[in-house]
Amino acid sequence: MDALRVALAQINPTVGDFEGNVTRILNEIARARAAEAALVVFPELSVCGYPPEDLLLRPRFLSDSRQAMERVAAGCEGITAVVGFADPADGKVYNAAAVVRDGRIEYVYHKIELPNYGVFDEKRYFSPGEECRLFQVDGVPVAVTVCEDVWVQNGAAERCAAGGAAPLVVNISASPFHAGKLAEREEVLAGFAERTGATVCYVNLVGGQDELVFDGGSLIVGPGGKVLARAARFEEGLLVVDLDRAGGGLTGEIPSPPPEFDRVEEVYRALVLGTGDYVRKNRFESVVIGLSGGIDSALTTAVAVDALGPDRVKGVTMPSRYSSEETRSDAERLAQNLDIPLITVPVERIFTAYLDELREPFGPGDPGVAAENIQARIRGNILMALSNRFGWLVLTTGNKSEMSVGYCTLYGDMAGGFAVLKDVPKTVVYDLSKHVNKKSGREVIPPGTLNRDPTAELRENQKDEDSLIPYEALDPVLRGYVEEDKAPDEIAAGGYDPQVVADVVRMVDRSEYKRRQAPPGVKITPKAFGRDRRLPMTNRYQAGRLDEPPKEKL
Amino acid sequence: MDALRVALAQINPTVGDFEGNVTRILNEIARARAAEAALVVFPELSVCGYPPEDLLLRPRFLSDSRQAMERVAAGCEGITAVVGFADPADGKVYNAAAVVRDGRIEYVYHKIELPNYGVFDEKRYFSPGEECRLFQVDGVPVAVTVCEDVWVQNGAAERCAAGGAAPLVVNISASPFHAGKLAEREEVLAGFAERTGATVCYVNLVGGQDELVFDGGSLIVGPGGKVLARAARFEEGLLVVDLDRAGGGLTGEIPSPPPEFDRVEEVYRALVLGTGDYVRKNRFESVVIGLSGGIDSALTTAVAVDALGPDRVKGVTMPSRYSSEETRSDAERLAQNLDIPLITVPVERIFTAYLDELREPFGPGDPGVAAENIQARIRGNILMALSNRFGWLVLTTGNKSEMSVGYCTLYGDMAGGFAVLKDVPKTVVYDLSKHVNKKSGREVIPPGTLNRDPTAELRENQKDEDSLIPYEALDPVLRGYVEEDKAPDEIAAGGYDPQVVADVVRMVDRSEYKRRQAPPGVKITPKAFGRDRRLPMTNRYQAGRLDEPPKEKL
Repeated sequence: MDALRVALAQINPTVGDFEGNVTRILNEIARARAAEAALVVFPELSVCGYPPEDLLLRPRFLSDSRQAMERVAAGCEGITAVVGFADPADGKVYNAAAVVRDGRIEYVYHKIELPNYGVFDEKRYFSPGEECRLFQVDGVPVAVTVCEDVWVQNGAAERCAAGGAAPLVVNISASPFHAGKLAEREEVLAGFAERTGATVCYVNLVGGQDELVFDGGSLIVGPGGKVLARAARFEEGLLVVDLDRAGGGLTGEIPSPPPEFDRVEEVYRALVLGTGDYVRKNRFESVVIGLSGGIDSALTTAVAVDALGPDRVKGVTMPSRYSSEETRSDAERLAQNLDIPLITVPVERIFTAYLDELREPFGPGDPGVAAENIQARIRGNILMALSNRFGWLVLTTGNKSEMSVGYCTLYGDMAGGFAVLKDVPKTVVYDLSKHVNKKSGREVIPPGTLNRDPTAELRENQKDEDSLIPYEALDPVLRGYVEEDKAPDEIAAGGYDPQVVADVVRMVDRSEYKRRQAPPGVKITPKAFGRDRRLPMTNRYQAGRLDEPPKEKL
Repeated sequence: MDALRVALAQINPTVGDFEGNVTRILNEIARARAAEAALVVFPELSVCGYPPEDLLLRPRFLSDSRQAMERVAAGCEGITAVVGFADPADGKVYNAAAVVRDGRIEYVYHKIELPNYGVFDEKRYFSPGEECRLFQVDGVPVAVTVCEDVWVQNGAAERCAAGGAAPLVVNISASPFHAGKLAEREEVLAGFAERTGATVCYVNLVGGQDELVFDGGSLIVGPGGKVLARAARFEEGLLVVDLDRAGGGLTGEIPSPPPEFDRVEEVYRALVLGTGDYVRKNRFESVVIGLSGGIDSALTTAVAVDALGPDRVKGVTMPSRYSSEETRSDAERLAQNLDIPLITVPVERIFTAYLDELREPFGPGDPGVAAENIQARIRGNILMALSNRFGWLVLTTGNKSEMSVGYCTLYGDMAGGFAVLKDVPKTVVYDLSKHVNKKSGREVIPPGTLNRDPTAELRENQKDEDSLIPYEALDPVLRGYVEEDKAPDEIAAGGYDPQVVADVVRMVDRSEYKRRQAPPGVKITPKAFGRDRRLPMTNRYQAGRLDEPPKEKL
């Protein structure tokens, strides 16, 4: 046969589940062998899941990882497999790719370029490898690389493969999703393929792990930099292709391309996969969501139903004296549209009991935001009580805009196990909600929910815009400050009122302590709250303050 | 004069407060000059505070850091100063020490060894320096190094200073406290001094920054490895000494040594400083604490009163149907002993309102832990309501043992801004409490509080030991698993029941999601929860599980 048949095994392992992951890998090896592939490739750290974080500091975890890798090797006959694992060797730990065949580990490559930025902490755990060697598959020289290795121009991997030395370069990856990331990856891989003249088999992880979603979308990139084949995104799959042995790219039948997703749809799929995997991998039977009649809880519920099915989603409506007839009926309509049960627990009597008991300690005067927060926290308590009673996971409904400026109540609407929209700006919440209705061809999310001015309904006639500027103006300012690390004057230079920018920046800074206690949520932007953005709570930094003369004489 | 007078300026900067920090540094420069010192040395990153975390990713923060450093230089006449700052240079960022005199920056050293383990993420931000050069102070060659540089044997700093090349080595540090850390530091510095034959001036930061406490305790270590002089711990200070110009160590008057602290007292002081600085640096006027009559809240209150004075500490008692007469009167006694007000807010009526509203959703049967948690969350809501009403910071009272096994209620007793005892095992809570009484010479913490079996009082006749093993047995198991990364069988090999160890390990693993939403607290052990220990929530790892044959056939 003139072609080299290669299988890209885009799997969804679970962190720490060595037994389950080994089984999954061996199953895919068997499928690839049945498809007569000569080589099957798995994502980065497939054996232990990615990222294992400080599990990598435990000696037993590392020896278990090595042992699991050996078990994979023992089950690998009649095909060559490249499998990612954590490799303890020579008193160090490596992010490794094993080349296995004939029942044994033939060669172990150690990742050379270790990312230590954004959500990555690989220098905390791994020592860098030093050498990129070729191995042969049916007479074809193949270079194996791990993720970041091909993102660094003129790195060791590139030098190893250059000049036709390796017609085929395998890259095993665990590349987390954010909107638009696929195009970045394609550009990087195209550049690498062009510079080396190699065909690149890029295998990405798929699945959710805490705040990260790996979107799959494995690729074959030809020596000219053109994408020759694609695996599906947001789902597992085995992509089998025939490569020209001389390095000319694909030959034979071209696999039919998977569906392409626009920006809104890819974000929606990331939310569905990230939420579903958090629930499944943590073995929750069901989730529970407080339905306010507003758009955030509506979208969260739609995502949950898509991820888990209506039988595993429970709605709770918790009306107060400030709830309008419209929001209550929109909550009911949403539950009907999504075919989920709706539990009603009025908060009025409980709220009154709090106000009575706190009358004396509060003293005279309007308790203002203190009373608003009591209501939000009553609702948090009710949801958690149902969670404790029935084992349901509480999904919180706050969006990134609120989370940024602290327009949310700690232990109130922030109370729960997973925050589906944590990294979704409010303007994108609207885009996604309209998309949900468009996709389903009906008004799943009620028109009232979509069109009503956002309100927390914690006091009479409250609207978000009374406390905040309109979200259309807020979101770009937040993007500049939170995601792009710009100074306030740089943001204002983009056409925003300097006073508004200063106010927003102050709100973001002051809310750091709230975010530190927030549940995890799906990262969909280049910089999410959590591991991605690590700011001190105790922080008096104000950009530009040094320009004014100090108050005391020096 | 035959001696070189050196001043160690052990200061307490605030992260991001360039203006305040510059003022503080210039004041100490003036004091050192008035004391006729030739050299004054400040801690690591004094100009911007430590650790600035992702502020270091903001270009404006970096240029402000450089500008602040230049302002310090402009004010430095008639003395040489070594000052830590973040230095943006050549498109990179360095953890730097500037040597300044005659109004300008004369030399900038870039830290070579960047710690990226434990609480440290320095490779996320900094590029390593490449060279250690000597500078002259009054004709004496001095090597400047930053923290980790002297912790690495045979590193560049050591090679630079070796063989008498530098009779004086300056080490500017930001070394976080844990119990027993001082002895580790002394050992490292003694080894360095012995190997190089240099006298080492070690200047450590002092103060609290979120979860870290820097304990000061700056040192002069002579060429034989002997500690020649010490600065006080847990407070600012300017230690002025005369060094023999030929490198023989101290000469002239030896400063009187500061008080030494035993293990319990040093931990207590760390809690007081860490709590006080969190409150002060975040500009809270007062703190509020829920007093249960138990030992955790009693110790927390004692720490708060020592940190802030009784006028800034408010107690709240929130009795329920399960509160005993004894715990209520112990709470009152504690408040009297510490001279703080005690606000009473009964939770009974509110609790009844919740149970009534939840009767139908809960369905028949004992709601068990769901009802217990409702009470804990009512108390959390009340404390937060007082916080929102009056601007008080809620201090939570849970200890490390509870936090480890999840014997605490998210949004209930875990609700608050700062968790004083978060890293203090329950057995150490007892040691500290007895110490408080011993130090004050009276029973500040009531005998009933000290002697009663621990209870959460969330149901009839509840005791902690009904749900947990006794703390004397629990704490060593937790230390092995949480702090030492041991596998269960390794812990059991130390003489613990394997079943108990397995149960404890499972409880620790299952509570990861709670800890992720916990407030910060003072690190006092080698491995605290938070930045120090980064574990996935989604995690199916069970050590040793691979030893059993997998369930499915491979």
